Amino acid sequence: MIKVVILGAGNVATHFFKAFKKAENVEVIQVYNRSEASLEVFKSNTQTTSDLAQLKNADVFLVCVKDDAIDPLISKLSQLSNLDGIVAHSSGSVPLSASAKRNAVFYPLQTFSKQTEVNFKEIPICIETSAAEDFPVLKQLAHSISEKVFEISSEQRKKLHLAAVFACNFSNYMYSIAEDLCNQNEVPFEVLSALIKETAQKATLNSPKSVQTGPAKRNDQATIKQHLAQLNNADYKEIYKLLTQSIIQQDGKKL
Amino acid sequence: MIKVVILGAGNVATHFFKAFKKAENVEVIQVYNRSEASLEVFKSNTQTTSDLAQLKNADVFLVCVKDDAIDPLISKLSQLSNLDGIVAHSSGSVPLSASAKRNAVFYPLQTFSKQTEVNFKEIPICIETSAAEDFPVLKQLAHSISEKVFEISSEQRKKLHLAAVFACNFSNYMYSIAEDLCNQNEVPFEVLSALIKETAQKATLNSPKSVQTGPAKRNDQATIKQHLAQLNNADYKEIYKLLTQSIIQQDGKKL
Repeated sequence: MIKVVILGAGNVATHFFKAFKKAENVEVIQVYNRSEASLEVFKSNTQTTSDLAQLKNADVFLVCVKDDAIDPLISKLSQLSNLDGIVAHSSGSVPLSASAKRNAVFYPLQTFSKQTEVNFKEIPICIETSAAEDFPVLKQLAHSISEKVFEISSEQRKKLHLAAVFACNFSNYMYSIAEDLCNQNEVPFEVLSALIKETAQKATLNSPKSVQTGPAKRNDQATIKQHLAQLNNADYKEIYKLLTQSIIQQDGKKL
Repeated sequence: MIKVVILGAGNVATHFFKAFKKAENVEVIQVYNRSEASLEVFKSNTQTTSDLAQLKNADVFLVCVKDDAIDPLISKLSQLSNLDGIVAHSSGSVPLSASAKRNAVFYPLQTFSKQTEVNFKEIPICIETSAAEDFPVLKQLAHSISEKVFEISSEQRKKLHLAAVFACNFSNYMYSIAEDLCNQNEVPFEVLSALIKETAQKATLNSPKSVQTGPAKRNDQATIKQHLAQLNNADYKEIYKLLTQSIIQQDGKKL
């Protein structure tokens, strides 16, 4: 049985908590959060605390707080002499901490929002540990909820996180602009659902570069001009221009 | 039985041809293409021609050629006095033609590439006809391959096509940049597959705006700076900056 204490009560903490609850051989013995109010949802299922001095010892302390709060929190943990477990944070962009004795990263490469259920089995978990002997424990913990576990160095993880911003956050923003354009023109956004899913599916089965389509890819200047004329939001116009130009240049053509 | 002549031999024409072949009550009696070479793949399944004078009469002439070739081709068709079927083009950005007597649009809102099979059932087909009495025929034709058929005006279609460029072409370009960043850093792009599919899935189940995540959404300047420092491709840097700025401004925050 791997005993886990989760620190944080946001989206990532909540999704981890739910997943570990279903897992065999893992027990979340406590959830810590600085503010008491956010702990309410956990109280019926495990012990909770907003006082670091009350933390129980565990095999793994899983730090799921905002990036800039990670190092200060880990520093505080390292001063608590009764705790000797692995201290793993779950961030894609923060390097291995130098504060704790047993540092680790346990980074789920996924986007979490409270209202959507996630299937952890398919979520890649990227692991890194400062001590080689800690790796098997985190690997076992990761495999208890996911089928896809990767050993990824801090340097690789930084690049992955950056790549994920494009693949996920920015692609979602493209959907969001599309939604806005539909709403403005009383076209149901639902008409685009199949297209959005197919595009994502296709990109994961092929190299996205090889399946690029659209006016920019065809260097279809008539359509590009028509589209720009239709966009009255200055941001959207700039974005359309820049992405179109970049796609065209990638193909070695000039605007 | 609806008799169809397909004009064109590119991706859209090929996918329509395959879908109609499986459909009941539809027969593709001929495929026309200006260049003879591209007709080879159709020859074992239907009659083909590269000579407009040899076109057979049909219920529907489905024009699947490049946008700027649509009007010239429809003009030529309208001069052939032996043809009296509906002339429907399949473009998202070209308005109803004024050349033919019975004009229509039969626009599949999907991205097609030769190497990927598509499931037409889920592809929305947007229909518009100049004559009300032609609508039922095209509706029947659309329903023979798809469960999602919409009546969309030329004006709405223009906006939809523009929205689709963001939702599909530009989101694919975001995947493509992510792939490039992975390759540059010897990280398997496969690690991002679950994220890409989940992001698309989530956007179609919710409003994409409501599920936006990432450093820009959090206005996390430390991560944003770190990411910009990591990007050495000038295009990618510009794109990161512009999209980040736009997401932040949408939230009413200032950089």
